[in-house]
Amino acid sequence: MLNAADTAFADELKRAGIATRPATDHYVTEMRGNYRGLSEVVALPASTEEVAQIVRLCSEARVGLIPFGGGTGLVAGQVAPEGAAPLVLSLERMTAIRAAYPEENTLIAEAGATLADIQSAAEDVNRLFPLSYGSQGSARIGGALSVNSGGINVLRYGPARELCLGVEAVLPNGDILHGLKRLRKDNTGYDLRNLLIGSEGTLGVITAAALKLFPRPAHVATAFIAVPDPAEALDLLSLFRDNTGDSISAFELISARSFAFLRATYPDMRLPFDEDPEWCVLVELGTGPSTDAETLLGETFEKAMEANLATDARLAQSGQQRAEFWAVRETIPEANRKIGAIASHDIALPVGEVPAFLAEADREIAVLFPMRINVFGHLGDDNLHYNIFPPEGESRQAYRDKAPRVTRRIHDLVMARGGTFSAEHGVGRAKIADLERYGDPTKLSAMRTIKQALDPHGIMNPGALFKD
Amino acid sequence: MLNAADTAFADELKRAGIATRPATDHYVTEMRGNYRGLSEVVALPASTEEVAQIVRLCSEARVGLIPFGGGTGLVAGQVAPEGAAPLVLSLERMTAIRAAYPEENTLIAEAGATLADIQSAAEDVNRLFPLSYGSQGSARIGGALSVNSGGINVLRYGPARELCLGVEAVLPNGDILHGLKRLRKDNTGYDLRNLLIGSEGTLGVITAAALKLFPRPAHVATAFIAVPDPAEALDLLSLFRDNTGDSISAFELISARSFAFLRATYPDMRLPFDEDPEWCVLVELGTGPSTDAETLLGETFEKAMEANLATDARLAQSGQQRAEFWAVRETIPEANRKIGAIASHDIALPVGEVPAFLAEADREIAVLFPMRINVFGHLGDDNLHYNIFPPEGESRQAYRDKAPRVTRRIHDLVMARGGTFSAEHGVGRAKIADLERYGDPTKLSAMRTIKQALDPHGIMNPGALFKD
Repeated sequence: MLNAADTAFADELKRAGIATRPATDHYVTEMRGNYRGLSEVVALPASTEEVAQIVRLCSEARVGLIPFGGGTGLVAGQVAPEGAAPLVLSLERMTAIRAAYPEENTLIAEAGATLADIQSAAEDVNRLFPLSYGSQGSARIGGALSVNSGGINVLRYGPARELCLGVEAVLPNGDILHGLKRLRKDNTGYDLRNLLIGSEGTLGVITAAALKLFPRPAHVATAFIAVPDPAEALDLLSLFRDNTGDSISAFELISARSFAFLRATYPDMRLPFDEDPEWCVLVELGTGPSTDAETLLGETFEKAMEANLATDARLAQSGQQRAEFWAVRETIPEANRKIGAIASHDIALPVGEVPAFLAEADREIAVLFPMRINVFGHLGDDNLHYNIFPPEGESRQAYRDKAPRVTRRIHDLVMARGGTFSAEHGVGRAKIADLERYGDPTKLSAMRTIKQALDPHGIMNPGALFKD
Repeated sequence: MLNAADTAFADELKRAGIATRPATDHYVTEMRGNYRGLSEVVALPASTEEVAQIVRLCSEARVGLIPFGGGTGLVAGQVAPEGAAPLVLSLERMTAIRAAYPEENTLIAEAGATLADIQSAAEDVNRLFPLSYGSQGSARIGGALSVNSGGINVLRYGPARELCLGVEAVLPNGDILHGLKRLRKDNTGYDLRNLLIGSEGTLGVITAAALKLFPRPAHVATAFIAVPDPAEALDLLSLFRDNTGDSISAFELISARSFAFLRATYPDMRLPFDEDPEWCVLVELGTGPSTDAETLLGETFEKAMEANLATDARLAQSGQQRAEFWAVRETIPEANRKIGAIASHDIALPVGEVPAFLAEADREIAVLFPMRINVFGHLGDDNLHYNIFPPEGESRQAYRDKAPRVTRRIHDLVMARGGTFSAEHGVGRAKIADLERYGDPTKLSAMRTIKQALDPHGIMNPGALFKD
């Protein structure tokens, strides 16, 4: 049994020289408004040593703690609505870029640095840090690693996990793991880095990371391409792969419904097509100096037209227009939030299964009750956001009780095809039931064994990943 | 305390329907001849269920077992020269390619499939499986994953770890982990796949793996390029990166000493240069259909000449010549074995540190005693094989007692520069002392905690990674 992080514990932290503040809304609500955390106290360490000190105090007092980044997580990993109120350990003061090594394409960032901070530090040394998604201005790298987040460039550069060469972290006993190696190859014992990445703060607090940088592409070309349907979109992806080598950096699927929601919630936004196509993809190529990206994209589009894989296209004519194109894609989640989803699903499937799943889901989900479905996402990674909305003019509140049933059905269909119920958001608290239903029993048992061994008092993000 | 896998235990296995054989030389010697295992019995399971049955029997009888692949490991991870003789659990009968999915660029192989088998299965569906090194005809994928092996294409495609999407494995309690997901993104709990990969058989037996495939490059160009020294070789790598985008698939450093050893041991081998350059690199580019790889390589070489980063080159004029070029590179380790190394080192450094390390090591190592140094390896990954040989005409036996001192000094220099004492070979039994000397204490302690929790009886590859 854990104790609450109450004012007495806050006083203890203060006496130890740790800055604290009361847990305002920012720390206890999540973006979709489905959970409210009970935490009252936020600790604001300024150094890895202070993080270690906090963890030791929590361990001694049997007080739970939630490592807190930007608060942008979508599975309630950062808020505890039940149990003894945990301490919020916010990394917001640890935002330094400790060092950049452009000649070796690496950089060391503290856990509180936002993705945008890191992108900008990389740009300062003429390099690219490719982890990128809508909330990159507030999402912090520690949180991104804790859920192994993805975004729009996974296709080419991999998710957070693959962008991280090493971590510094504080383990549940308060010991500091010094693992900021900047090496591409290092086979010296168990891979604790990858165990911490994706463990959602339940095995330790990541305090800094050695990250991979990349050369910035010399030429970039970006286009919306209208496609007949998702099956043709996948054939188009194959065509792009065959035709452009490793130059595709993004391949995002967008449905007419996504455009309709944008028109309804952001009426001033410039959209690419006058008449929204049923399906389209947002494609980006990045090439070296010897290949003209626009020509390559144009040639590939011509081939796609000949093969009946594309019906129309809009090529960004400038850097500004490219930014506008991406703003369209990146605003879809916010438009969805304004419309108000009944249920959201972050699914991935083996690529061959995507079209069949979409057809099947249309047949089996759409008939459950009147609904609008908005499918969009990272088709290049076989990762779709499959979200369910009430009929036009109705509120999601009226449909709240229908969410579990539709989610169950969608996840059943996805899992039957070898897919996953969480591609890039994690499990947090929102998907524990799914993990227990669909997870391999041997995996779940090994996870519990590891958690119990490394965190015997259960202080690290209590209630996340595991049912208490 | 463990019990030996003796003839009585072999009889028990046979009664349970498990095929066995006596442990012949193949199972108890390692390539460099530095260790001899005590094992007497080899179990030959034909299925994952049989592996599970064997592990359960070992667990009940407190008998250790060594998961055994091709026997090509270089750190004695596969032979136990001390303690109660463990059972050798050879995966040699589990060699099936269970399925190939060319449209999604994945394939599922059983642990006993050799790298060459998998490369060939990928080729059959017009795809590339890029994990490649000299022993690929005998190295099995289970062993490759257990040490996270690397080879010549890591630069572009990553080591074994990054080529694996999911594993099936038997854990120390005999439970089967069903983790053969073929997904690029799946954030559902702890990353057991990466915990098993690189754990050198101490946490379980990998029985099958879901592996990534890639499109085969449309055009390939391969060249030996002579360079003034390793610092210029690194500048040349940057030039290639800047000039060719993501097209470089290999960048191998070779020293004049490597050529001299080849001339001495393989006098009939055709070598690229009449007069061996002090340093050269073997470069390979693979491009999509719209880029001519040879032209790109030629243009980049011209730029390198202008920048004084290259002095001469030999471009492979045919597929056959390309194979000859690679045979030169891949025969270096065998030539080294024939010459007889006093000590071998599999090191990696942050790239900026490589030239300074080589200069420093030349100063500090070469003066210890009369020796020949042969440096070669995967410069594109900052991974060098830094091997020490006796003076010409002398035997390595006379220098055996000097090996620990020179190894200690080399590893000290490497670690002081933020490098590693094992880049791609693992720790096994040969480098336990290094792991304990140089490893982060928090990491070592967490490793022991995990090992103890998942394998409380210590049956999985006893004596590897941990001092008993």
